[in-house]
Amino acid sequence: MALINENFLKLSGAYLFSEVAKRATAYKEAYPDKKVISLSIGDVTRPLAPAVTEAMHKAVEEMAHAETMRGYAPDAGYPFLIEAIIRNDFNARGIEADRDEIFISDGAKSDTGNIGDIFGCENKVAVTDPVYPVYVDTNAMAGRAGEYLAAAGAWEHITYIPCTMENGFVPALPAAEVDIVYLCYPNNPTGTTLTKEQLKVWVDYALANKVVILFDAAYEAFITEEDVPHSIYEIEGAKKIAIEFRSFSKTAGFTGVRCGYTVVPKELMAFDKKGNRYSLNQLWQRRQATKFNGTAYIIQRAAEAVYSKAGKKQIKGTIDYYMENAAVIKKNLEHTGMAVYGGVNAPYIWAKIPEGYTSWEFFDKLLNETQIVTTPGVGFGKSGEGYIRFTAFGSKENTLEAMERIKSLKL
Amino acid sequence: MALINENFLKLSGAYLFSEVAKRATAYKEAYPDKKVISLSIGDVTRPLAPAVTEAMHKAVEEMAHAETMRGYAPDAGYPFLIEAIIRNDFNARGIEADRDEIFISDGAKSDTGNIGDIFGCENKVAVTDPVYPVYVDTNAMAGRAGEYLAAAGAWEHITYIPCTMENGFVPALPAAEVDIVYLCYPNNPTGTTLTKEQLKVWVDYALANKVVILFDAAYEAFITEEDVPHSIYEIEGAKKIAIEFRSFSKTAGFTGVRCGYTVVPKELMAFDKKGNRYSLNQLWQRRQATKFNGTAYIIQRAAEAVYSKAGKKQIKGTIDYYMENAAVIKKNLEHTGMAVYGGVNAPYIWAKIPEGYTSWEFFDKLLNETQIVTTPGVGFGKSGEGYIRFTAFGSKENTLEAMERIKSLKL
Repeated sequence: MALINENFLKLSGAYLFSEVAKRATAYKEAYPDKKVISLSIGDVTRPLAPAVTEAMHKAVEEMAHAETMRGYAPDAGYPFLIEAIIRNDFNARGIEADRDEIFISDGAKSDTGNIGDIFGCENKVAVTDPVYPVYVDTNAMAGRAGEYLAAAGAWEHITYIPCTMENGFVPALPAAEVDIVYLCYPNNPTGTTLTKEQLKVWVDYALANKVVILFDAAYEAFITEEDVPHSIYEIEGAKKIAIEFRSFSKTAGFTGVRCGYTVVPKELMAFDKKGNRYSLNQLWQRRQATKFNGTAYIIQRAAEAVYSKAGKKQIKGTIDYYMENAAVIKKNLEHTGMAVYGGVNAPYIWAKIPEGYTSWEFFDKLLNETQIVTTPGVGFGKSGEGYIRFTAFGSKENTLEAMERIKSLKL
Repeated sequence: MALINENFLKLSGAYLFSEVAKRATAYKEAYPDKKVISLSIGDVTRPLAPAVTEAMHKAVEEMAHAETMRGYAPDAGYPFLIEAIIRNDFNARGIEADRDEIFISDGAKSDTGNIGDIFGCENKVAVTDPVYPVYVDTNAMAGRAGEYLAAAGAWEHITYIPCTMENGFVPALPAAEVDIVYLCYPNNPTGTTLTKEQLKVWVDYALANKVVILFDAAYEAFITEEDVPHSIYEIEGAKKIAIEFRSFSKTAGFTGVRCGYTVVPKELMAFDKKGNRYSLNQLWQRRQATKFNGTAYIIQRAAEAVYSKAGKKQIKGTIDYYMENAAVIKKNLEHTGMAVYGGVNAPYIWAKIPEGYTSWEFFDKLLNETQIVTTPGVGFGKSGEGYIRFTAFGSKENTLEAMERIKSLKL
């Protein structure tokens, strides 16, 4: 008799963004004449950079001819892309990385989800709260989260580290003993950041406690301020304790192209139950060689073009475009009297909603009264209750129109 | 203290094809003047079909303009591709399928690897032997295989079903009680098939015993004989017990493009430990929504073009090309006196090697004496010892040259 993985039964029925989409669709069906604007899921709206599409056309042509076609890619990616990454994303910031420490993939969601495969089920996991749901749900699927305690709105074995207005969105070191910590900076969903000094506290903690930090840097390209690290490896010792996830989705508008990469330093160790040390790089290499068959050649060429001179310039233009949206959203939300966070080093704006609403209630209010789709903070965790997230990834026109509507909102 | 998944330590150091590549590379470095021909890993050599590259160019252009660019794809794939699949791969063979039973992905290796996520760790797994290593290794990673018993060359908790010359490569129903069975037909590595009647034995067994069959049909496009099923769903009742994996890798030369799909019928059930029934479709939907972010738009358009009138014709031309290679390999190997299997409904030829050699020894002999890289049968499991696999995916010229060399081989 085939048995299911019963951990799946503990998960809430729908992934957050499926529920958001469901409510938005229901509204559109009920009011087909209204123009609904989505500032919800962090999906890009600008086209790919010309340097990228040029590289893709060229790669498609290579695939069209026997002499230049490419079959299976190396599991971990083509050297041309890995080298461009090392040069631009790391060496340029004074960080060394070896070729076999970089693993190209179809995106950071897959990697942050799949990384759990190489860790034992006994690890105690900590997340900041609010948090990108993938970290929690994938640990729940693997059995690391225990039971979902509905009354508490929390998983039994997950340590939640609140990040709220009250602590300036700076996570305190966990009081409980934990083994793995997910950190995402610039943060999704709050749009807030840690300074180098603040991140160093975490690196030192991990070094002292043999903790592995899973560092999601998917939004690093949006950093505008000096003292905000783009990579955790800017902090001394971090290669001994951190895996870093990177994504081209937001950096280069690749949400529909699918490419990201993960850095697993060779000096990063974890342990068996007897305390013997093992290189996580080896384990991830084995995982990817067994359950993944490489990223499409065409897409790796597209990603490579992100690092070309023209590509860099074009991509900066797009990032500036989104960050102008962020500034517009921030300004207009502040104008309503709400406390507003993020939007300076990140494409997300995190607003404290007025007293008297849950975040789903305020989501519904915005949808009904302004036809703007947002993401309710509580969807990211208990400490997200009372907040709502806006993304800056809409078109300029839609963002401006949405903000006009916000002005007339009765709070 | 972060703990590793200790199951990884039980795996042999290298994935089979990494070891093959290592020996081939060592040979090339030692003898740089020799022309090495690989008939090993099943990687295609023909270019993409013109209909496919045309569709890709068009999709790249769409991504280059704001009005037509696409962000995140639906997790399970775009309706245009799902509908083409249902029409062509299923309806055309008298099989019904709903849209939400088809899940587009980056390939069958990912899907056959990841499918384990939705099953409990307690399931007893059976595989045919020899077998595609991914099925076994991914179950070992999940802890379903128990310990590797080196002396036996087998995993403690895996039930192996030998497929050899002696039983005509037809797997017998397992004597032991099992919960999940992997079947791959046309078979990789042996190139052999099951008739409808032979496959029906398995479907009836699964129905009677609440077993789930994970049916890998990645090579169905190579079937030339009438009585060989292209899909397990050609057998009555199979939608109640089988998940089917399909791939564009071999069908359409997509090894470097990455696209496949998995069919999880809604009527397919598995159980919790109390015997309650759950739809695996729901679980896989949740898994993919959480750990996967869809397949690139460009690549889904490429796959759609496989089903266009021009695409079908072009792809048939390429398949015929490879099957001519298969016939050449089969004929020439038979000429050496070896017993030869496969190559009629599959692009693999499975040869019984002469007495006195292990399959790695014969691999080395072929490499040293003929500079042909093959795949040693034992790499696919204990019952593969004494065999060696050739693929038909080389170029015609290389295949002919390799076969000339085989003629001079002293056996």
